[in-house]
Amino acid sequence: MYDIAIVGSGPAGISAAVNAKIRNKSVIVFGNDELSHKVEISRQINNYIGFANVTGPELNDAFRKHLKDLEIEITPKKITGVYKMKDKFTLLANRESFDAKCVILALGSETVKPITNERELLGRGVSYCATCDGMFYKGRSIAVFCDNENMLDEVEYLSQIAKKVYLFAPFDVKTSVENVEILPSKITEIIGESKVEAVTLKDGRRIEVDGVFFLKQAVSADVLLFGLKTENGLITVDRNMKTNIDGCFAAGDCTGTPYQIAKAVGEGNIAAHSAFEYLAK
Amino acid sequence: MYDIAIVGSGPAGISAAVNAKIRNKSVIVFGNDELSHKVEISRQINNYIGFANVTGPELNDAFRKHLKDLEIEITPKKITGVYKMKDKFTLLANRESFDAKCVILALGSETVKPITNERELLGRGVSYCATCDGMFYKGRSIAVFCDNENMLDEVEYLSQIAKKVYLFAPFDVKTSVENVEILPSKITEIIGESKVEAVTLKDGRRIEVDGVFFLKQAVSADVLLFGLKTENGLITVDRNMKTNIDGCFAAGDCTGTPYQIAKAVGEGNIAAHSAFEYLAK
Repeated sequence: MYDIAIVGSGPAGISAAVNAKIRNKSVIVFGNDELSHKVEISRQINNYIGFANVTGPELNDAFRKHLKDLEIEITPKKITGVYKMKDKFTLLANRESFDAKCVILALGSETVKPITNERELLGRGVSYCATCDGMFYKGRSIAVFCDNENMLDEVEYLSQIAKKVYLFAPFDVKTSVENVEILPSKITEIIGESKVEAVTLKDGRRIEVDGVFFLKQAVSADVLLFGLKTENGLITVDRNMKTNIDGCFAAGDCTGTPYQIAKAVGEGNIAAHSAFEYLAK
Repeated sequence: MYDIAIVGSGPAGISAAVNAKIRNKSVIVFGNDELSHKVEISRQINNYIGFANVTGPELNDAFRKHLKDLEIEITPKKITGVYKMKDKFTLLANRESFDAKCVILALGSETVKPITNERELLGRGVSYCATCDGMFYKGRSIAVFCDNENMLDEVEYLSQIAKKVYLFAPFDVKTSVENVEILPSKITEIIGESKVEAVTLKDGRRIEVDGVFFLKQAVSADVLLFGLKTENGLITVDRNMKTNIDGCFAAGDCTGTPYQIAKAVGEGNIAAHSAFEYLAK
């Protein structure tokens, strides 16, 4: 059981992690080696004070050095669900689970708006996790939206279970697997009353399926943590970075504009301090 | 007329200034060479990410370098009053005045609670500015609270006008000026109904005076800007760092805990962005 689980390794997540470590809290940070993709691809950053005119990779390197200095490691796992239990949170990463007393969500701005019926049919044909739910579709037909090349192995896994996989990916993808059909057009809507029956594509086609998998880098925050208050996809927080769920804090781009490193770093700091107060109770 | 006037040169003020400059706003920053006294005296700072384990002076130097890089200068003047006019703000520094379309207050945490009747008798015997109000006390008796050695020349100026100056300073001070009497005990209360009549000292003594000057590094925020909403001396702001006064924003320690560099930097960034929106209207 960790004191604090931090979801996200961008400036907000790192700032929270550094503060937690200094205050001797046990902390786990879920993210990736790139720390923040948005920072990594920035050509010039000039408004994070102390670093005049740096490139994104230079700033990320300074952050990485800071983490190393404090012996903070990034756990390279993608959290697919956060569940509030009685006095703890359980975080799922495929089949693994992690427990923490409180949670800081530093998800970035790439949270996406769900498509029609995505949220309504979650758990009734809609899934975000191939490993967790794949077996339910043995011998059946599924649609898969995959926005990341690193997740293509999950598509392959699904193709070994399902009878037919309709795959849409917003990047160039080829497959030699017989039961995988690449869709030329995006999935825009899910059809079904009590369970998934079909999907509609942007080109107007309707494809009958039993399930839809979204293998996405970013999951909408209120899908990640059921009951979390959001507005236009952004997590609602107060000045102390508290969300509507006791023990759950949020920081950085996922709480709204301005989408700035300095703002994210500041909010990560505040969220960590609010978490310390929560833990002290 | 400046686009943005920033009061304070600590991390919040600098962060706001850097953003304003990058966005090509004309900006004036009131502060001092030390930038932030609190940062300067910090022996170790380890939670402003990107700077692992630095001293306060090292971090201040990095901030100074950033300012120099962007050709931002600090105007070493103490703002004693901010006045909201129709569509601008006027800032007073002794007898000089500066106009700006909007204001960011980054005053730090050293805003102090007023003593009894300090606020009630402001302008009726209570003053924060020797240069502005000194002449009103020609040939009269005044009490002076001076918390900063740099301001002792203002005491000298007052002693040339007033008949008698009772001085309290929380540091070792000697004077050879005949009409200046050093008080051994702090001024704890101002007495008077419609105007200042006397002050009470911590040791219980009562001294009849016509006026009281507070020559302080920090002025309570709602004394600085009349009508500004504060709570326990802290400026009330929303998530966009807006105060209750349109066009006036606040950032950093003056808005409340946690008193942290990262938080101040983040809030300075947000305040600047809110100012840009305000200016665009």
